[in-house]
Amino acid sequence: MKITDLHAANGFKPTGPSMLLIHESEHMKVINFNFKAGQGLPLHSHNLEGELVICILEGEGHFISAEGKTPAKAGDTLVCPIATPHGVGATTDMRVLVTIAPPI
Amino acid sequence: MKITDLHAANGFKPTGPSMLLIHESEHMKVINFNFKAGQGLPLHSHNLEGELVICILEGEGHFISAEGKTPAKAGDTLVCPIATPHGVGATTDMRVLVTIAPPI
Repeated sequence: MKITDLHAANGFKPTGPSMLLIHESEHMKVINFNFKAGQGLPLHSHNLEGELVICILEGEGHFISAEGKTPAKAGDTLVCPIATPHGVGATTDMRVLVTIAPPI
Repeated sequence: MKITDLHAANGFKPTGPSMLLIHESEHMKVINFNFKAGQGLPLHSHNLEGELVICILEGEGHFISAEGKTPAKAGDTLVCPIATPHGVGATTDMRVLVTIAPPI
């Protein structure tokens, strides 16, 4: 059993997203990304089997799909295939939890 | 791509944990549990391959292991095998995101 205090373990970087790998196994990969306002992950996809979950833990921003942006705030949770183009952007400092299963 | 607003989609129940199944597939199961203060999931385990992640989204409480309780607050994230006894309890109203891969 491993417990991670995300606030203590991962901060924010002025130069780009601050990434903390929380867990990686044969079953899944769990990552915490912290974005300063204006940072994000642009629309991208992976031609692989599997799914991802992005849960906004703190702050506000938007989810990005091929159709455009959808506002996102703490508690909003996106689920999509890894092969579907996806992205995220922050309008305030924003913490998100990303889970990928199976891991890529 | 599916986006769920957990605050709008799941509330709290005086009678016990309020559970919202966010996603279930061959790869993973994602559940939001809301606990009123005093509610929780007692120590339990499943004799199965796989892992679970419990991320505290809001509120305070504790993670439960065979060794006892560990304080938990928003942002704290537990990872453990499904076969390892685990539980969670709320001391304030508390929202958590649970991910299980592969799904059970």
